[in-house]
Parts: sequence; structure tokens; C-alpha cells
Amino acid sequence: MNNFIFQNPTKIIFGKGTEKLAGAETKKYADKILLHYGGGSIKKTGLYDTVVKSLKEAGVEFLELSGVQPNPRLSLVQQGIEICRKEGIRFILAVGGGSVIDSAKAIAVGVPYEGNVWDFYTGKAEVKEALPVGVVLTIPAAGSESSPSSVITNEDGWYKRGLTTDHIFPKFGILNPELTYTLPNYQTACGVADIMAHIMERYFTNTNDVELTDRLCEAGMKTLINNAPKALANPQDYSARAEIMWTSTVAHNNLFGTGREEDWASHDIEHEISGIYDIAHGAGLAIVFPAWMKYVYKQDVQRFAQFAVRVWDVDYNFFNPEETALKGIEKLKEFFSSLGLPVSLKDAEIDDSRLEEMADKCTASDTKTVGSFVKLNKQAVYDILTLAK
Amino acid sequence: MNNFIFQNPTKIIFGKGTEKLAGAETKKYADKILLHYGGGSIKKTGLYDTVVKSLKEAGVEFLELSGVQPNPRLSLVQQGIEICRKEGIRFILAVGGGSVIDSAKAIAVGVPYEGNVWDFYTGKAEVKEALPVGVVLTIPAAGSESSPSSVITNEDGWYKRGLTTDHIFPKFGILNPELTYTLPNYQTACGVADIMAHIMERYFTNTNDVELTDRLCEAGMKTLINNAPKALANPQDYSARAEIMWTSTVAHNNLFGTGREEDWASHDIEHEISGIYDIAHGAGLAIVFPAWMKYVYKQDVQRFAQFAVRVWDVDYNFFNPEETALKGIEKLKEFFSSLGLPVSLKDAEIDDSRLEEMADKCTASDTKTVGSFVKLNKQAVYDILTLAK
Repeated sequence: MNNFIFQNPTKIIFGKGTEKLAGAETKKYADKILLHYGGGSIKKTGLYDTVVKSLKEAGVEFLELSGVQPNPRLSLVQQGIEICRKEGIRFILAVGGGSVIDSAKAIAVGVPYEGNVWDFYTGKAEVKEALPVGVVLTIPAAGSESSPSSVITNEDGWYKRGLTTDHIFPKFGILNPELTYTLPNYQTACGVADIMAHIMERYFTNTNDVELTDRLCEAGMKTLINNAPKALANPQDYSARAEIMWTSTVAHNNLFGTGREEDWASHDIEHEISGIYDIAHGAGLAIVFPAWMKYVYKQDVQRFAQFAVRVWDVDYNFFNPEETALKGIEKLKEFFSSLGLPVSLKDAEIDDSRLEEMADKCTASDTKTVGSFVKLNKQAVYDILTLAK
Repeated sequence: MNNFIFQNPTKIIFGKGTEKLAGAETKKYADKILLHYGGGSIKKTGLYDTVVKSLKEAGVEFLELSGVQPNPRLSLVQQGIEICRKEGIRFILAVGGGSVIDSAKAIAVGVPYEGNVWDFYTGKAEVKEALPVGVVLTIPAAGSESSPSSVITNEDGWYKRGLTTDHIFPKFGILNPELTYTLPNYQTACGVADIMAHIMERYFTNTNDVELTDRLCEAGMKTLINNAPKALANPQDYSARAEIMWTSTVAHNNLFGTGREEDWASHDIEHEISGIYDIAHGAGLAIVFPAWMKYVYKQDVQRFAQFAVRVWDVDYNFFNPEETALKGIEKLKEFFSSLGLPVSLKDAEIDDSRLEEMADKCTASDTKTVGSFVKLNKQAVYDILTLAK
């Protein structure tokens, strides 16, 4: 087990009706805020009205910035920064999924910074301070409600880049599983793939002696595998929705990665796909992860066999562990397929004309590698994309 | 799953050599502190010197209060409160195990309170503020390094009572598994029993639909079961020590209890035993828990069967689940025994002369019940103590 520091200060408020607490929680931080959300879905479901009522009852004044898209854009972030500066706003309430939260976090770090906020995403500058952010979550997927991360897409060149800094842990995350009843099945499935991926990025590690976190990861994955089909079959199954929602947060609050090297190559590769083709991040991960696994599993056949046995209940083949390992990968692919997700670029109607371009961007023209379980150069990323065809 | 709020702000600094960071972490909160510890063991091992050096290097002035005993006493707490008031001290650094930390927390809530600090432990007063506390942990057991709880024994009547308040989450917990190499095996075993108990108090619940937390609990228990024998066989097995230490914290940082009713009857009953007989808390739990289980398992045979199958790898008897449930309880008892712990009052050389007195104190003369999986009145507690004979 490696040395580590673990701290996650976000207050999680979980359960039925909890969105009504948004105003009171917000009031602890500010009297005037930016209410940040996506399209019209929160107006259709009535969530917008509930949150607005709760803000008014708490005496919180708000300005609105809507229009956050999946793969949230830098241009809207810059608009948000301007509004906050002009209006003296010191708190952002994000109502939505990972894209809205990530956009809110980007505004939060951008407001007190004199340069271009994109500097933080390219590593050109380091975050020193940020406005506080609160969250009412509508999509369990990104884990951004209690993570120190934000991913933004720069339309100028379609670069999708991530930022991680302790300054952007949300102050609170309000999680009501009922708010996810109206998610289309495809979006629920994409969320599940994203959560699985957050766990698998941590699970496949070269660090030895990580029994507790291995088992915690397995607990999260088994819970998802059991509950995702229930939520798709009956979107109003509270219990299934609650299991998925709580798993999404725990999967990405850093606990599962304590003491171990994490990988994140599949996320890096997926960012190039959804950066160019604008498909859902979860769908991209369902395509990339099985291909990545096939490319790297020989690095640690026993770890992949453990994944197959403990997570997928595959019988261990004592005389051919590699067969067990491969069965686990196949099970994962079948699971994603059963949820209605693409598991190849072809399934997502992406041809092979830009594989080289994606491999090139992902590795900054072969000047850096991605991942740590196996360090992947441009050719390796290209080969994985080819396996994903 | 029940509605819940989850927040745990403690910063965990885990791994080899981390005790050297005690000074720098402390300096963030205060220039003058109370250094609180137990007997001479931290002087023998050299930990005292390391911490003192690190405090001096960070420019932190300190006064010392040593002498914390297992089942920490109210009288020493009151001494600590006086010192802090007189010397204007605003931070307490606890170096030790759960007893030292709990004692430090009691001092921390007592300093700013005008009444008797025991009021907080009897429920007569509510904590409104507390001094910040930091921890260098030497015994993985109580989980107090990142919990909002403290248990103190009042020598006047030998009452052992607990306090839970968000004000006493430690600011930081420094956890170096190497510091546990010198623990006597019996103390390691007592710690493991305490950690198991913290998980089991949460695991045995009447709340339905708690799959993620069930599985997280099972992950923790399996990790303990695998690593405790290794640590006893080879006290310098870093990996086993690290798994036990990290499990001890995660087991009691509230995550495993999210969304579920917890029990805590076994802790309440045990407090009466160790309050009177001054045996180690973990040893008392190893005695009480199997007896409690035998008394309550019919409340939910399937939950006890799940415990047997998933935690102890017992084969499920589809035609007689009760047999499976009982096998799980037997396995737990065998495990505690194999660690060298008492599993009956007789093993601990406690006769049956004061069972009635303990049952009486535990239930405030039969005016309240303990536990929630099954609510236990005085007679029920007496019956459990009788089963533990």
C-alpha cells in the first residue's frame, strides 16, 4: 500500500425530498448567487420551481445562467465568470449532472483569477482560490458532486481537459434518487458506465497489497451490476436508483483510490472521442474500456482473474487463469451491451478515419504517455482505438 | 435505504514516516498546544521524541498531559481542561490510541463550556463548540481518529458513557502502520475485535435495500479476517498492519452506516462490563457480540445467513438457512478465539455475581432499551449476559 492523504469535506444530503433544503444550505454561504443549469429538463420536471422556491424562502437572491451542454464548453464558463464578477456573486449553485457541476467549478476557479481560466486546464497555472459551489444532483454518473475535479471542452480545437484541485470540492451535494426517475434509459446506462469506469480506473493498478480498497471497489461494482438492470426495467424503483446514486458518489470521492496508483488511460482516450464526436462520455467509456482491457490484461493476469471471479462470479480456472481473465472482460462488454450502450466505435457510428488524430491529441503528438497500469504511447492508443473499432 | 447526511472532514495522512508531519499540521491551527498521551510506551518506541522534534521544528510550543488510561477517566479530562484554560491553550494533539483521543476530545469540548463536561456525556447539555484536536494514532481500534465520538468513564460510580457531536471530528489523523509494530498481540487482537464490532453494529440492521453499504461492510470484515492472523504471526508485516489500520478508520468514519439504522446494543452492554471490570473494550466486545447474535438472530435469519456466506464463506443451506446463520456466529466466535481473545465472561475471569447490576445500569433501571435491531430491555440484557457466561 502506498502512502496517501485522504480528505473529502463535501456534505452529502441524501434522500427523498432533500432538494427542498437547497435554499437553507446555500444561505450559509451567500445571499446572492449564480443558479447554473442545463437545458429545460429541470423546468419540465418541476425541480427548477422547487429550488427557486427554496432559495426565495431562504432569502437568497439569484441570477441564472442556463444552457450547459454535455461536454461543457469553455465559452459558457467565460460568460459565467463575467456575470459573477459584474454582479459581485460569491457562490454558485449547480442544478444538474456532471456537466453542470464541472461548468460551475470552472466558473468558481475563474472568477478570482486574472488570466484565462483555460490556463488551469492546460496546467499553465495553479488554482489558489475558488468560489464555493453547491450542488443539486440530477444524474448519477460523474461523481463531480463530491470530487475535486472538473472537465471542460475548449471549442477552439475541441480539446477536452480536466482539472483536479482541492479548492473545488463542493460544499454540499444534495442527492435525491427520485430526481433520476425521469432520466431516459440511455442516459441512466451512460451514467452506470461512467461510475463503473471510475471504479475500474482505480481497480487496475500495479500497487500490491491493497486488499481493503480492492474489496471496496468490488462492492461498488457488484452493486451497480445488480441495480442497473432494475432501474432500466422500472425507472421508478427507488431502491435501485438510490443504490446507483450513492455508488456514483462513493466511487469518485477518492476513498477507493487510497493507497494505490490509479490508471485513467481509458478516460484520457475517451475524452478524445467525445471531444470530437460529442457522444456521451459514458458511451465512450463503454467502447474504450473493454478494448483497453484486451490490450493491457497480460500486465497482470491474476488481477484480471480476480476481477472476473469476484465481480462477475466467473469460476476460476486454476489451470488457465488467462481464460478466466478474458471471461471477465467479456462479461463487462456483455453488461454494457445489455444496458443498450455501444461497445465498439461502429456501434456508435464512428468510422476509423480519425483514429490517428485522436491518438495524436491524446498523447500530445507522442510527447507524453497516458495511463499508469501500462504507460501508453501514441501507437498504443492507436492500437486500442483499433481494437475498439 | 433511509435518508441520511454524510460528512467527514478529517484529513487522513497515511503511511510510513508520516508522524514527522505532526508539527507542520499542528502549526496550521495553533502556536501553543496541549500534548496529550498515555503511559510510557511512546517514549520507549521513540515516537515521543519524533513528535516533540517535529513540534519544535514547526515552532509549536507545548505543555504535556500524560497518564491517559484505557477506559479514559473523567478526572484526567478535568485536569486537562484546567491546564488549557490556565495556559490559554487552543489546540490538543493526541498521541496514542482511542483512549487518548477520546480524552483529548473531552478536554476539547470542556474548555469552552462553563458547566461540568460530564453533562455532555449524560445528555444534560449539548456541545456548541470545541477546541480543534489533532491525532497521531498508535492503536488501530476505536476509529476515534476520524469519528465524531468520545467515550469517557466517570470514576464516581464507574459509568462509561459516550458523546457524539460533529464538533469533535479531529482536524487531522496521522496514521503510520509502522507505529503499530510494537503492539502486544493481545492489544492488536482487541483492536481487531473493536473494528469488527464497529462494522457489525452497522451491518445488523432492519433497514431494507442497503446493498452498497452491506457490501462495503463485508469488504471491511473480510479484510480484517485475512490480515489479523498475519499481523499476529509477524508483527512487522507492513501490509497486514496497513490493511488493519486503514480498515479501522474507514469502519468508523460513518460511511458504512449511511442510509441504515445502526444497532450499538453490544457496545452499550460491553461498556457496563469494562466500566466495572476494566477489561479491554475489544475483549469485552468479543465476549458480548456472539452472545448478542445468538439472542437476536431470529429477527432476520436471512441477514445472518448472508453474513455467514459472504463474510465467512459458509456454504448456504438452501433448505435450512438457520443452520447457515448459526454457522456464521460460530465462525465469528472461532475467529475471536483464534486471536487469543476471551469469548465468554468465564474466559475473562468474570463471574456472574454482577450480571443483574450491569443489566440494570445499561438500561437505566429498565427505564430505557438499548439497540435497535432488537430493542433490549433489562431482562433481555441480562439474558444476553447469561448467554455470555
